[in-house]
Amino acid sequence: MTNIEKDPYKGVRDFYPEDMASQNHIINTMRKTAESFGYIEYSASVLEPAELYRAKSGEEIVNEQTYTFTDRGGRDVTLRPEMTPTLARMIAKKKKELAFPIRWYSIPNLFRYERPQKGRLREHWQLNVDIFGVEDISAETEIIEVASNIMRNFGVIDDNFEIRINDRALIDETLKEMRLNEDQAYRMKKLLDKKNKIDNFQEEADNIAGKEFNFNPKPSKQITDVINTLKSRGISNTVFDPYLMRGFDYYTGIVFEVFDKSPENNRSLFGGGRYDRLLEIFGEEKIPAMGFGMGDVTMRDVLETYNLIPEYRSSTDLYICTVDQDSIPESDKIADILRKNGVNVAVDKSGKKIGSQIEYADKKNIPFVICIGKDEIDSEQYKLKNLKTGEENSVAIDEIPNTIKRK
Amino acid sequence: MTNIEKDPYKGVRDFYPEDMASQNHIINTMRKTAESFGYIEYSASVLEPAELYRAKSGEEIVNEQTYTFTDRGGRDVTLRPEMTPTLARMIAKKKKELAFPIRWYSIPNLFRYERPQKGRLREHWQLNVDIFGVEDISAETEIIEVASNIMRNFGVIDDNFEIRINDRALIDETLKEMRLNEDQAYRMKKLLDKKNKIDNFQEEADNIAGKEFNFNPKPSKQITDVINTLKSRGISNTVFDPYLMRGFDYYTGIVFEVFDKSPENNRSLFGGGRYDRLLEIFGEEKIPAMGFGMGDVTMRDVLETYNLIPEYRSSTDLYICTVDQDSIPESDKIADILRKNGVNVAVDKSGKKIGSQIEYADKKNIPFVICIGKDEIDSEQYKLKNLKTGEENSVAIDEIPNTIKRK
Repeated sequence: MTNIEKDPYKGVRDFYPEDMASQNHIINTMRKTAESFGYIEYSASVLEPAELYRAKSGEEIVNEQTYTFTDRGGRDVTLRPEMTPTLARMIAKKKKELAFPIRWYSIPNLFRYERPQKGRLREHWQLNVDIFGVEDISAETEIIEVASNIMRNFGVIDDNFEIRINDRALIDETLKEMRLNEDQAYRMKKLLDKKNKIDNFQEEADNIAGKEFNFNPKPSKQITDVINTLKSRGISNTVFDPYLMRGFDYYTGIVFEVFDKSPENNRSLFGGGRYDRLLEIFGEEKIPAMGFGMGDVTMRDVLETYNLIPEYRSSTDLYICTVDQDSIPESDKIADILRKNGVNVAVDKSGKKIGSQIEYADKKNIPFVICIGKDEIDSEQYKLKNLKTGEENSVAIDEIPNTIKRK
Repeated sequence: MTNIEKDPYKGVRDFYPEDMASQNHIINTMRKTAESFGYIEYSASVLEPAELYRAKSGEEIVNEQTYTFTDRGGRDVTLRPEMTPTLARMIAKKKKELAFPIRWYSIPNLFRYERPQKGRLREHWQLNVDIFGVEDISAETEIIEVASNIMRNFGVIDDNFEIRINDRALIDETLKEMRLNEDQAYRMKKLLDKKNKIDNFQEEADNIAGKEFNFNPKPSKQITDVINTLKSRGISNTVFDPYLMRGFDYYTGIVFEVFDKSPENNRSLFGGGRYDRLLEIFGEEKIPAMGFGMGDVTMRDVLETYNLIPEYRSSTDLYICTVDQDSIPESDKIADILRKNGVNVAVDKSGKKIGSQIEYADKKNIPFVICIGKDEIDSEQYKLKNLKTGEENSVAIDEIPNTIKRK
């Protein structure tokens, strides 16, 4: 028999405990911030009917850029490439029972079928924060506030990122005033979106317009209001960017993007916008909606750039080393008491020398150890050792939980 | 254009906020218990090379019972139907760097292609708890302790479930002593596993054996030791069950199963066992291993049977109702302060009447409200109302976090 490969499938990641810890740090920071603004969690399966994406993206994109296959019941199934269609589907289904506005968040894994490269894996996780049922710009400002607060809660300072803001409606109107027809306007928006990536922007723009293209729109009142409200809320790292489009076709109004200003990682991080008409694909009336998506892979790059990923420590707080086999039953009892008091404890029953038991705990990044033998059992006093600082304290059991309370 | 369906894909679930809250209760109870015993989290993608399962299960089972498809690069990909092969793959890959024993847990979603029915969906989540590198029965007892403690932490009392224990090695030896050849022994084990589900067990057993099949093995020393050690640890709801096999072929020693004793839900809930040889499929030497898997759908049924799913409350602690538009900037500032102190707050900016703002919070199961207008801003005193009890207290901002501290 040939041996089976030990590598994961191409373009996806294994999360060993240290990777998992930093992943949990990213996910938990997203979760906590979203919840602090009153957003509540929803979720769904990664499997979705393929038609959910074909409606807006077209058959070709779904077939070429997503994992889509036919199940044995003849159903076309897609591994979701984004969460917004699922969210819209769920809201459309229970529209009548749900009280609006709705503040929801989710942190799903998403799949795309493409060549893996830095920051673009085939599977990634993405925070989605959305508000449904608010027509005025309090939706825009709240959503952008959440986005800004996540960056801050990760430890990124305002000087290091910029929030670019535009309004799809403003651009549509501007292009209309410039007498571009629908097809020209569509192509022009795709071009505007690429402006910073191409050298011959003006030439191509002139080509599409069929004349000299002088693009210099003033910010709409909406944009100015959003920027001013954010400023009054202490968020000043905003800028109007008439070239900002965001990829998805379903945006209808304000769009925004968080941009990393560091020289090493100078690029768009994530963004979102208003999409008031998405429910129409389910035959429902439109509902005002605003939201954004923030990917874990991109954020990991940012946090690595600014050295903001916390040092690994095990979720196990305490390792109990046992002097001999006779000490094990009492060690188990002590572990039980500590577990009931919120301490995560493993007990060493290997029979190895105390020195190598302690060494093992250290290797595993477990921060505290106690060693239990006859003396400790008799005296009911335990030497609690902090493996990082070397500090050692003689304590009774009931002092242990507070002493090792997590920072 | 035809409207798109609002239902999820067949056999999978949408998690609306209330469903998500009970799901999180299940997941968090599993997580906390596993971590309390010193198990640390790992994870991996749902996508795995199909060969990972073909090695042990055979091509037919993989093709018929799993979601397996060929990607555009010609790779056969499977949506993982269980986590153990992934775990073994990850450990095989980093065997040299990892310090043993390894205590790991994960709560992956798993997929199987079958007709959806009660307790058997196409996607479910499953806690996996495994210890690698321990040969003696301290692995068995610890793993069974974790399983038992999760049941208890869910609130299920010991009288309502039973832990059935057997030893694959004992059964193999017994069948060998009864002079069954390898093929007969294999078929007999499949039959023993089904004993409680079929009427003509004895007849079929005699058929396989080619003689009268008198099956009455005594518990091995291993089994007795495990049962006695668990008893000394306060776990007495155990029983030796020579008919217990567990499905997977890779088990090599002790196997166990947690069985629900309620008349309404009388059935096997979950289980696990020792599988010392799984790493051999990667061309690695064997490593002693013991673990179990516990599914969320099954556990949800159990918790519903015993009425143990906590009542829903929103993760949003406080809803700030605003008397008029002028109160919003100050309300936002108060929200900021509370958020920094760990309170999850949403601010109502709808301009609706106070009564309907409060009604909205109640409908959303948000436990507390304050209403902010000129009086509150001037006096810096806020009436904090508990919507469930109707209790109302006049408080300053800095008293709010402790007053609404979650139970």
